[in-house]
Amino acid sequence: MCISDDPITAAYQSYLDELVDARLLIPSGVDGVYGRSGTFEDIIERFEDYVTEKGAHLKPEVMRFPPIMNRKHYLCTDHIETFPNLMGSVHSFMGKEKDHLAMIDKKQKHEDWSKCLDATEVMLVPAACYPLYPASTGTLPQGGRIVDLRTYVFRHEPSVDPARMQSFRQREYVRLGTPEQALEHRNYWLKTAEGMLHAVGLDAKPVVANDPFFGRGGRVMAATQREQDLKYELVVPVATAEKPTAVVSTNYHLDHFGHAFDIKTSDGNVAHSACIGFGLERIALALFRKHGFEPATWPAEVKKVLKL
Amino acid sequence: MCISDDPITAAYQSYLDELVDARLLIPSGVDGVYGRSGTFEDIIERFEDYVTEKGAHLKPEVMRFPPIMNRKHYLCTDHIETFPNLMGSVHSFMGKEKDHLAMIDKKQKHEDWSKCLDATEVMLVPAACYPLYPASTGTLPQGGRIVDLRTYVFRHEPSVDPARMQSFRQREYVRLGTPEQALEHRNYWLKTAEGMLHAVGLDAKPVVANDPFFGRGGRVMAATQREQDLKYELVVPVATAEKPTAVVSTNYHLDHFGHAFDIKTSDGNVAHSACIGFGLERIALALFRKHGFEPATWPAEVKKVLKL
Repeated sequence: MCISDDPITAAYQSYLDELVDARLLIPSGVDGVYGRSGTFEDIIERFEDYVTEKGAHLKPEVMRFPPIMNRKHYLCTDHIETFPNLMGSVHSFMGKEKDHLAMIDKKQKHEDWSKCLDATEVMLVPAACYPLYPASTGTLPQGGRIVDLRTYVFRHEPSVDPARMQSFRQREYVRLGTPEQALEHRNYWLKTAEGMLHAVGLDAKPVVANDPFFGRGGRVMAATQREQDLKYELVVPVATAEKPTAVVSTNYHLDHFGHAFDIKTSDGNVAHSACIGFGLERIALALFRKHGFEPATWPAEVKKVLKL
Repeated sequence: MCISDDPITAAYQSYLDELVDARLLIPSGVDGVYGRSGTFEDIIERFEDYVTEKGAHLKPEVMRFPPIMNRKHYLCTDHIETFPNLMGSVHSFMGKEKDHLAMIDKKQKHEDWSKCLDATEVMLVPAACYPLYPASTGTLPQGGRIVDLRTYVFRHEPSVDPARMQSFRQREYVRLGTPEQALEHRNYWLKTAEGMLHAVGLDAKPVVANDPFFGRGGRVMAATQREQDLKYELVVPVATAEKPTAVVSTNYHLDHFGHAFDIKTSDGNVAHSACIGFGLERIALALFRKHGFEPATWPAEVKKVLKL
């Protein structure tokens, strides 16, 4: 692999090469798309168990959505306006046999056959909590809802940074309820997650952050999001200490999703929401970077927390 | 929901309604796309543990691929020729700000904005073993390979049959090696899986089967596949006993993938392959149908096997 002149890119490539050599990641020929080894998966499962343990007292509803969601629901969020470059739209072949022959002919001539496809009724899930909001339309029970989610999410941002995958898992806890409930949830998890990362030996620190909104209008939205203190991330050095990686992210959405999907609190107000998301692959990558590629040799206190 | 005149479709709708009422499945507004409850997931995890137990003596390599794969690798299989109607092609927005404004304008006018997107470098995974073959190009170690896989796969076939999901998980064991090794693997797992399904109280039986190849040419391929005894399924009554559902499927691919991805055995022949796939959602649906929606009340011998 050619090594970049840019030291950060070179650090990404170097860590990626190490992960592939150690057979923790299996390359696919597409940047940001990798298979995971059994060892890699085991670390994710054990970290997830730790998350479950820390969330158990909240008595969350557990929901697991597949990696696709209803296109109509996707369009009720503003993702197409704000992150169009990251979206994944699922298309399929819906023609008859003669259309199929024409498509195969294009494929054989190395022409663009993808325009022979039509959009299906689904999109790839951009964040683990997106499918929850349309499933919450109506009036919340008294006290609101706390939901435990995990799914593979898609972001079209090919990169040699092993921590910037196109398809990865988010484990989330979402609070739907009053503004106070949403903020309390955000604050609880931000502090708890920081403690959890420290307990597994990661030098995590919270930073105010913003989403990578698209275009010039996006820069205004990013500034507003920071001013309003809506997004915090926990960042950890992964490939390089110069540019630490967000491994956990919290968002207070105000009443954004409550409005979009007509979700009301039991006293009739528009629901507010907040979420915490654990980037499971990123946490595994940070742990392998910090403690080495052999979990058997990790520090005793980390092994104890992860029940290794 | 309107009830179909066709008794099988009516049985599908009726079981789906029961699953939604019991909150085991969470509807999304798209046929075949559902969230799963914690109880549903727990059954899948426990059945998977049972699979892992039965596969342990094979000492498989564990690999977990995400739900997307390299488009170029997809095109090295013949999926686009044989199952174009089931494919999932991932498209995204790759334009500039003015193109974005034009796309949003189309969206607001309820015109087809999806043609403003371009094909990305990835496709949705059609079967859990597809990403393995391109990762196996070259010469196999002596004795070949046995690989344990699981991923979410996509099939564009919207249906009210709760067992025909568009996005579901396959747990697979794949054998790459000589024809004898591939057939032995297929035979071991077909027999083992039948015993496993019986042990959890499911009335499974093996049947010769064929894949749903597209078009008129596909009918010939299906007949050939049956004549050559290449595909067996284990079928179980789920929504209706009149039309039992395949919950496990085995395929002997001959040297199809060996040729497509240049996989050789250690003695230099083109590798053969065989796989067994457990349809995890279908197995859970069959168990809920047979034993009821409350796992705590399932028969003692089933609870023992699943460590419930």
